[in-house]
Amino acid sequence: MPGSVYSSLVKRVYASASEVFPFHVGDTWMEPAAGCRMEDLSVAEHPGMHRYAPVAGLPGLVDRIVERQRARTGLAVERSEVLVTAGATGGLGAVVGGLVAPGDEVLICAPYWPLIAGIVRSFSGVAVPVPLIGAVDSAQGAAQAIRAACTERTVALYVNTPNNPTGRIIPADWMAAMVDVATSEQLWIFADEVYEDYVYAAEHRYVRPLAPERTLAAHSFSKAYGMAGNRAGYVVGPAQAMPHVRKVGVHTVYSTPTASQLTAERVMGAAGDDWIAVARKAYAEVGRAAAELLGVEPPEGSTFLWMDVAHLLDERGLNGFLEDAGEQGLLLAPGPSFGPYPTHVRLCFTAVPPEVTLRGVARLAAML
Amino acid sequence: MPGSVYSSLVKRVYASASEVFPFHVGDTWMEPAAGCRMEDLSVAEHPGMHRYAPVAGLPGLVDRIVERQRARTGLAVERSEVLVTAGATGGLGAVVGGLVAPGDEVLICAPYWPLIAGIVRSFSGVAVPVPLIGAVDSAQGAAQAIRAACTERTVALYVNTPNNPTGRIIPADWMAAMVDVATSEQLWIFADEVYEDYVYAAEHRYVRPLAPERTLAAHSFSKAYGMAGNRAGYVVGPAQAMPHVRKVGVHTVYSTPTASQLTAERVMGAAGDDWIAVARKAYAEVGRAAAELLGVEPPEGSTFLWMDVAHLLDERGLNGFLEDAGEQGLLLAPGPSFGPYPTHVRLCFTAVPPEVTLRGVARLAAML
Repeated sequence: MPGSVYSSLVKRVYASASEVFPFHVGDTWMEPAAGCRMEDLSVAEHPGMHRYAPVAGLPGLVDRIVERQRARTGLAVERSEVLVTAGATGGLGAVVGGLVAPGDEVLICAPYWPLIAGIVRSFSGVAVPVPLIGAVDSAQGAAQAIRAACTERTVALYVNTPNNPTGRIIPADWMAAMVDVATSEQLWIFADEVYEDYVYAAEHRYVRPLAPERTLAAHSFSKAYGMAGNRAGYVVGPAQAMPHVRKVGVHTVYSTPTASQLTAERVMGAAGDDWIAVARKAYAEVGRAAAELLGVEPPEGSTFLWMDVAHLLDERGLNGFLEDAGEQGLLLAPGPSFGPYPTHVRLCFTAVPPEVTLRGVARLAAML
Repeated sequence: MPGSVYSSLVKRVYASASEVFPFHVGDTWMEPAAGCRMEDLSVAEHPGMHRYAPVAGLPGLVDRIVERQRARTGLAVERSEVLVTAGATGGLGAVVGGLVAPGDEVLICAPYWPLIAGIVRSFSGVAVPVPLIGAVDSAQGAAQAIRAACTERTVALYVNTPNNPTGRIIPADWMAAMVDVATSEQLWIFADEVYEDYVYAAEHRYVRPLAPERTLAAHSFSKAYGMAGNRAGYVVGPAQAMPHVRKVGVHTVYSTPTASQLTAERVMGAAGDDWIAVARKAYAEVGRAAAELLGVEPPEGSTFLWMDVAHLLDERGLNGFLEDAGEQGLLLAPGPSFGPYPTHVRLCFTAVPPEVTLRGVARLAAML
C-alpha cells in the first residue's frame, strides 16, 4: 500500500471510527519525567536557551553521554566520538550522508525500521534488504546472508536490535558473525540501538565493542524517555568518521534544538532512570498481554509485535485486511514498509495506554 | 582559513581575551517574546507535546503560515505548498535533497550564506558561486552573470535577500531579470528570505510572486523572532515539488520539534509583531552606528556588515588579520566562507547587546 493510500486510510478511520487505536505509530502514551519537560526550562535559569547550541552538542550533555557510553559499553569513548543529533533519524541521516556516496550499497537487515531505506535513497545510495529475522536460524546463516549480499559497491551494514518491527533481539552469536563479515569486507556498521532500554528478558548487548573502529551507533532520547517530539538523540562512532557525519548534520539541521538538549541533560539522571524503570515494566506487561491475546510470541524488546496475516487475506490482499481492521478503528503498519513482507503487519503496543491497547488488541484478536 | 583552524582561533580567543566580541556568529542578544518561550508550554495545556508532530507541521501552525504567506505575497498559497522544517537550514537541506541529483549544478549568488554550498555538496550536487553583489551593477549585468554560469547540468539558482553577509537588498529589477533567466533556463529558484523582517529602508519584496511555479522560499522563526535554537522554519513552494522536499525532510529530521512549533504558533501573533518592531528598530540603530564607526555603508537589511580589508593585510594575509583581531577579543567571520572573497570579513551586529557591539566595533575601527 503506497504511503499516500495508507495516509488516506488513516484519515478515513479517524473521521469515521468511534474509537481509534493508532497501533501504526511508534510512540508512547506516557508523558516525559517531571522536571525534564519544556515547562521546566526557564530563561531565568538558562539565559540564551533559545539560541543556537554548539553543533556537536551542549558540552554538559556530551559529557553525560560519554560517561554513559563508557559505563555501558566498556569502551574508552571520547567526546570527539559523540555527536548530538536531531533524534536517531537525524543521526542516521548524518551518518549515511557523511559515509555513503551516490551508488554505494548499504545492506539493511530486514525486517527493518522503515525510514532507513529512505535515508539511504535520500543520499542517492542503494538500499539492499537482507532478510534476517525469520529468514535464517543460526549465526552461520546470518553471516552467509550478509556475505551473499555483498558486492563491490557495498559500503555498510545496517542492523537494528532490539528490532523494530519484530520485537526480537538479534542473538549475540549472530551479531558476532555478522560483524566478522563486515570486518572482512571492510564495511561500516550502522547499529541502530534506540530500544536499548527496552529489553524485557535480558540486558541489551551493545554492538560497538565488537568492532569500534567501524561501528557508528545511533541512540535516542525519544524512545528511551518518551520525548520523540523533542528530536534529540546521538551517534557514537570512530573519531575519524565523525567529522564527515558532523558536516552533514550541520548542513541538514545545523544544531540539535537547544531546549531539547537541556531536557536530555536533565533526563540522564535519577528522574530518567525511574521513568525508564516504570516504562519498561509497563511496556513488558502490555506487550506480553497483547501477544497472548493474539497468540504470538511475547516481545523480547522494543515496543512492537509483528505478525504474518497471510492466512487471513482474501483476493483483496493486505490492503483489504488493513481496510477491514480500519473499520474496527484499528490502524496497523503495513509489512511492505519494513522490507519484502507483503503479508505482515506491525502493531505498536505503547502508543496508547495499556487498557486502550488491550481493548483494541482484543478486537484485532477477534478478527484473526 | 579552514574551519578547524578558525575553530581553534575561536577557542584561543575565548581562553585568553578579557572581553570577547563574538561578531562571527549570526544570532541575537534578545530573548524571545514573553509568552512564546519553552517555559510557557505546559503538558497540562498541551498533553502529548513531547511526542512526534505531523511531518508536514502542526495543523494550527501551517494554517497561520498559509494566512501570512497569502497576506504578504498576494499568492493563493495552499497548505500543500507549505512544509514546516528544522529551521531554514533544514528547509533548504530538504529542498536541495529533494530536487538536486548527484552532479547537478546549483548557481549560488555570491557572496552567499556559508551553509548553502555545503548543503549542495551534502547531496552530491555541485555548488557554482556566481559573484553578484559588488560584482555587477545592473539588472542586465545580473542576468548576464547568471546566464553565463548555466550549463547543461544547472538545475537551480539560489538567491538570498536581504543578503547575508553583505547587508544589501538585491534590487527588484535585478531579481526580475534573474528570474527571467531562471525561467528561460527552466531552473528551480531557491529563495532564502530569512531576513524578510529585517529591512531597514523599505519593505521586503518576496521572490515567489515573480515565478511561483518554480520558486521555493525558505523562511525562519530563528531570525524573525530570536529563536534559532528552536530549529523551526518553513518552506513554501509549488505543490508538485513539495512531496520530494517533504520526503527528504522526513528522512533527515522526521518532524520539526513539536514544542518549537508550538512556540512558533504563539509568536505569529501580537507578541511576535511587537518583538519584531522592537528588534528592527534596535538592529537598525546599532547597524547604522557600527557602520558609521567603521566608515562603511549602513546595512539595508539583515544583521551583518561586510568589509574588504585588503588594504590592511600584510604578508600573513587574512589569517593574520583575523589573529590580530582575535588578540583584541574580536571574532570576525572570514570572507572565504562566503565565496571567492579572500580579503573580506563579515561582522554580525546583533550577536551581543548594542553597547557591547559598539564597544567592540570601536576597537575594530581603531585597527582599520
